[in-house]
Amino acid sequence: MRQRPALTPLVGALPSTVPFVGPEAQERDRGRPFRARIGANESSFGPSPRVIARMESVARDQWMYCDPDNYDLKQAAARHLGVGTENVVVGEGIDGLLSLVARMYAAPGDAVVTSLGAYPTFNFHIAGVGGQLVTVPYENDKESLDGLLKAVVRERAPLVYLSNPDNPMGSWWEAAEITRFIEALPETTMLVLDEAYGELGPASALPPIDVARPNVIRMRTFSKAYGLAGIRCGYAVAEAEVIRDFEKIRNHYGVSRMAQIAGVEALADQDWLHSVVARVAAGRTRIAGIAETNGLKPLPSATNFVTIDCGKDGSFALKVLQNLLSRDVFIRKPMAPELDRCIRVSVGLDHELDIFAEELPGALAAARGN
Amino acid sequence: MRQRPALTPLVGALPSTVPFVGPEAQERDRGRPFRARIGANESSFGPSPRVIARMESVARDQWMYCDPDNYDLKQAAARHLGVGTENVVVGEGIDGLLSLVARMYAAPGDAVVTSLGAYPTFNFHIAGVGGQLVTVPYENDKESLDGLLKAVVRERAPLVYLSNPDNPMGSWWEAAEITRFIEALPETTMLVLDEAYGELGPASALPPIDVARPNVIRMRTFSKAYGLAGIRCGYAVAEAEVIRDFEKIRNHYGVSRMAQIAGVEALADQDWLHSVVARVAAGRTRIAGIAETNGLKPLPSATNFVTIDCGKDGSFALKVLQNLLSRDVFIRKPMAPELDRCIRVSVGLDHELDIFAEELPGALAAARGN
Repeated sequence: MRQRPALTPLVGALPSTVPFVGPEAQERDRGRPFRARIGANESSFGPSPRVIARMESVARDQWMYCDPDNYDLKQAAARHLGVGTENVVVGEGIDGLLSLVARMYAAPGDAVVTSLGAYPTFNFHIAGVGGQLVTVPYENDKESLDGLLKAVVRERAPLVYLSNPDNPMGSWWEAAEITRFIEALPETTMLVLDEAYGELGPASALPPIDVARPNVIRMRTFSKAYGLAGIRCGYAVAEAEVIRDFEKIRNHYGVSRMAQIAGVEALADQDWLHSVVARVAAGRTRIAGIAETNGLKPLPSATNFVTIDCGKDGSFALKVLQNLLSRDVFIRKPMAPELDRCIRVSVGLDHELDIFAEELPGALAAARGN
Repeated sequence: MRQRPALTPLVGALPSTVPFVGPEAQERDRGRPFRARIGANESSFGPSPRVIARMESVARDQWMYCDPDNYDLKQAAARHLGVGTENVVVGEGIDGLLSLVARMYAAPGDAVVTSLGAYPTFNFHIAGVGGQLVTVPYENDKESLDGLLKAVVRERAPLVYLSNPDNPMGSWWEAAEITRFIEALPETTMLVLDEAYGELGPASALPPIDVARPNVIRMRTFSKAYGLAGIRCGYAVAEAEVIRDFEKIRNHYGVSRMAQIAGVEALADQDWLHSVVARVAAGRTRIAGIAETNGLKPLPSATNFVTIDCGKDGSFALKVLQNLLSRDVFIRKPMAPELDRCIRVSVGLDHELDIFAEELPGALAAARGN
């Protein structure tokens, strides 16, 4: 019997299950494409035409390595947010940055706090470093600031995750509440404040950025409002020493040359961003109307999706989801207790929301078994 | 005095120095661009025109997330190499895959073997997981297979790195020697066989791929012969269980949609690849001729660069490098003892090699101090 190399004890103990099933995998399983792709909180409105033109024009330059410093994009992001270049690090989407944060702040066995049902990729990366997840239930469909704080203190957690606006519920806290939460945190606890949807909600939900504070990392992305999910690029804003610490372990050549160029151009076209934000707001209103027409309850949203309370339990909402999928409408749903009574519908193009409006009544009827 | 979150002991112990200085950073420091970019072993011939056209046509689709399974690209790579899809994992360049391999096979304190002066990014990632690097000097400008094997056995190393063809010397072993090395390795030691330059050397340097063997991971990239360094995409080929283990920790959304599409198209245009390989061979001959004309000794190369023995010590070669940089010619050089007597020149376009030919005599004279 041949021997084989052993995984490290830490990696060897991880599950082999893959929590990430993309719409492409579902399409391969089904043998046919979706007619409406409104499940991954992408921006169907796409990137700015300026960004598209720029990407087209630099396709032939991709033989050159990317700038490992991400210099131009760091400068653009810093200027955009009114911070210094030394306060910005760029990564392979927020996902890539979360992987680094996990390695930086969570040693094996450390308690790490998040909300039950919050972003699964954060949990995946915490498990990957041997951290012990401590989860706090949502309260009234919002992440519980009090609950998170109590768990941090009780567990002496070095790391806590909070998204604002929130995924998968679309809820948000006003800036004053977030600031109160930050000020109440132990100084030795690092907060990851995931603001992936930050551009899409009310500006009043975003607290001022304080780069003097060493225990908050704010995360932003080009995947949502900027319509560039496919390029894999996000950035983190924090105190300069925290940013320098990313240099110790990050994949310096991880963010493609194309992504860096597209990111700079995207930040430069704020008119496009504003037009997308307006169209997303209109799309939310439309999705809410479709839900109400069908007797369902749309939750308030500060994101590019609307989470819809189907009015019964999780198994009912799952049936609604499955019946929409079988009608070629790609959506997703929360899975945690309480939240699982809902489905989650991303703002799409008009014709996609038409399809959703057409198919929802049948999906509901089928879920109800009549 | 305010407290701050502590890094994990492992990350806290890492140096803050950044070993990755790209040509863009040098250009910013110098305040002017290089005239010849022949230092990073990129492919100045660029990607296939088919790839460029494909990238242009999908720029507008980048609002969609990438397929986290990298399904199409895995299929194309598997077909290209005659292995199963279950034997391929795609990552953010070989760099990204090396980061995962370090986490998978090197626990804190484990000895990890590589050659002294070999790929620094591998060393960076081993340090990042707390591995203890054990280095083996080159012999006659080649990685020492006997030396690596002895070190593996002596240190009971779970992981060893070998590049073939080799960077920074351009040397290579024939397939039979590599196979002998593999067969002599302890079954519990994982070999990373980095074949980034595999398409550019003699086919006889590439041993047959044996996906039944659980202790070899072969790595390939689109950054070199395929001319796509900027898109950050590489892949690893190994036994299926090894490949499955990558799923436990990889950033599933790490490889951009653009990169996956470009990679598929690049593999489909083998005519372009062959034309590039021929032009690279001609470029190597030209660089060797320039070296000889100047009384220097070009080393044999199976890559897209030529390493040139400057005939004196490391400090002399460093002066040659510096004098080329100051003449706007971007090249690099090995830094390890013995190897450091050399400079390393990538094959570039004709006009770039013209500039190298023009500037080398002056750089040599300046280095000699006359």
